Amino acid sequence: MDTRTGLPVVGMVGGGQLARMTHQAAIALGQSLRVLARTPEDGAALVAADVQYGEHTDLAALRTFAKGCDVVTFDHEHVPGEHIRALAADGVRIHPGADALRCAQDKAVMRQRLTELGAPVPRWRRIGSVDELAEFGTEVGWPVVVKTARGGYDGRGVWLLDTPDELVAAGLDPAGPSADPAVELIAEERVKLVRELAVQVARSPFGQLAVYPVAETVQRDGICVEVLAPAPALPQSRALAAQQLAIDLASALGVVGLLAVELFEVPGGLVVNELAMRPHNSGHWTIEGARTSQFEQHLRAVLDYPMGDTGLTAPAVVMANVLGGADGGMGIDERLHHLFATDPGAKVHLYGKQVRPGRKIGHVTVLGEDLTDVRNRAARAARWLQEGR
Amino acid sequence: MDTRTGLPVVGMVGGGQLARMTHQAAIALGQSLRVLARTPEDGAALVAADVQYGEHTDLAALRTFAKGCDVVTFDHEHVPGEHIRALAADGVRIHPGADALRCAQDKAVMRQRLTELGAPVPRWRRIGSVDELAEFGTEVGWPVVVKTARGGYDGRGVWLLDTPDELVAAGLDPAGPSADPAVELIAEERVKLVRELAVQVARSPFGQLAVYPVAETVQRDGICVEVLAPAPALPQSRALAAQQLAIDLASALGVVGLLAVELFEVPGGLVVNELAMRPHNSGHWTIEGARTSQFEQHLRAVLDYPMGDTGLTAPAVVMANVLGGADGGMGIDERLHHLFATDPGAKVHLYGKQVRPGRKIGHVTVLGEDLTDVRNRAARAARWLQEGR
Repeated sequence: MDTRTGLPVVGMVGGGQLARMTHQAAIALGQSLRVLARTPEDGAALVAADVQYGEHTDLAALRTFAKGCDVVTFDHEHVPGEHIRALAADGVRIHPGADALRCAQDKAVMRQRLTELGAPVPRWRRIGSVDELAEFGTEVGWPVVVKTARGGYDGRGVWLLDTPDELVAAGLDPAGPSADPAVELIAEERVKLVRELAVQVARSPFGQLAVYPVAETVQRDGICVEVLAPAPALPQSRALAAQQLAIDLASALGVVGLLAVELFEVPGGLVVNELAMRPHNSGHWTIEGARTSQFEQHLRAVLDYPMGDTGLTAPAVVMANVLGGADGGMGIDERLHHLFATDPGAKVHLYGKQVRPGRKIGHVTVLGEDLTDVRNRAARAARWLQEGR
Repeated sequence: MDTRTGLPVVGMVGGGQLARMTHQAAIALGQSLRVLARTPEDGAALVAADVQYGEHTDLAALRTFAKGCDVVTFDHEHVPGEHIRALAADGVRIHPGADALRCAQDKAVMRQRLTELGAPVPRWRRIGSVDELAEFGTEVGWPVVVKTARGGYDGRGVWLLDTPDELVAAGLDPAGPSADPAVELIAEERVKLVRELAVQVARSPFGQLAVYPVAETVQRDGICVEVLAPAPALPQSRALAAQQLAIDLASALGVVGLLAVELFEVPGGLVVNELAMRPHNSGHWTIEGARTSQFEQHLRAVLDYPMGDTGLTAPAVVMANVLGGADGGMGIDERLHHLFATDPGAKVHLYGKQVRPGRKIGHVTVLGEDLTDVRNRAARAARWLQEGR
């Protein structure tokens, strides 16, 4: 409890843009997010009053950080499960817990749990050798998707292989000379993808659940470039099925806080792709596009406050990521100027990051009545910030 | 320019809730508001990363603060004009300028300027003696409104007098033994009030103007308790007249940043009551209720960015202030809990202030289709936070 305000202190491990935007939401709730950052240049460290520095892998740093926090939560999934357990054993309220978070940290564990729960997943297998991959590929058909169980994001740690030999060529042969014994691989069938969807759901320790409308996520080169909410032309029965699946998973896995369920829409229905247990890029549209943003909702959930309204604020909401591009001689400030002159209604979120090619440096959200119009505006706005034209 | 981000640094003198909410808006624009606060308990100091401490009346402190700011602006009107001029002479970009701000600092100057500009104002006069008040009252009719030219707010520094002798009784007789020679008084006719309205307009140094829909403000005991946007049942011609008046005043006075024009609606039209040159309580509804909040708009204006869309996000928006009440044994955290359980759609903004009776500690905004419903919800939400019931 912050004795100055009579309101709780939420600590977030990790100082990236998710912590940055959570801090904005915390301010409205009368709070000031406590952030464990790595460097003073971290996006959240640039803007938050209450910042400590340390590594998320350092239990002593985590213990110091947790002192005086009413609840501790995460901006990423990289805190080791044993540290989370140690903090919980110290009496720290920490959400999500280690068991739940494991399913967002390790794709093999996630696939295993989802299979046990009967959730729809692609056919998959742990792969310990080229022969096992060959056998799996023969069963499900080539090409096959191979992933590292841990550490991948934004298309990294994922390969599409046409033959088992490509595992060797990619330096991933578990028996090969360059193999890292710590790297576990899983293989998955390549599903017939109609498109990708995402659902955010929040769950409180009390067990209250609040699910957002289903959004469509559009990827390019494995990176999400655009999110459309609600997912256009999604039959209501499928939307409800996706929401129910997110609710069931949040409950079954005992998630506390935000759960983002990334889904593949396939001809026959839905398949779970990934899980994230924190505010997620696929939910940034909620800042302006829903009555309660995913950041405020995550705070409410981990604090065991009642959940906020997840309703849409407009018929069509589009979020476009802004990736660092070539600067073309024009700084980000000048680009912003031009964008604002071009579209007074585009809502910009910049993360305070140095521009580097391909790096997510911000996002733009546009709301309106007509999806095509809104989508064009969002894409144009993101391009202005990316390329200055 | 913040070399870490390539984005400008805006400095705000004053660390109250306006700076606090401006910081939230700054974060989205990739910035971190630099705040000159008085104490670490100031609402903005609790949440901002870049805080300096000093008095707004101390020119040396202001000069130190302005160093490295791309532009300096204000959370209140109390910085002396000579200090603003000194900073401008140093080459500091400071908005609004001293000449414009004088009209928000001194009601006699404001009334004089508005009279010169032909803007609608109540009949008024500077009052230097009981006899002058008696003469004025005879001309315009009793009761008469008497105000201190400087320093009043939330109903303080305003008296409604039935006779000239009450000036003596109130200890305000300029010739009386307790008179403060620094206090200037003005008298105004008491207008036939239909209701009070407010218009926010932003103006950039380039001269671009963006005006918001007209809102109705509801006062109780001289304190604004509720703001309804758009002002219900306001004829379009009168709404346009109010917006045009705000635009004309912002231009004529050379305001840069936000200008809040508080108006009396009278049977024959509109009369200007007060001016504020900063984000203002009567514009808090814009955070959720307009496409661009007044806080973002103020930043855009002082930075000479193009203005944002001022359109409404819903047909009916109501903001209710939360005043500190008796705690009834229930802390603010518990009240918040109950409120969220009661109304998942109410948007809460708490300012990080200690609860004291009558003090504005936050506000609540509710959006929807039906004004009566939205208004009831906002009032109930504010009451929950105020009284815990």
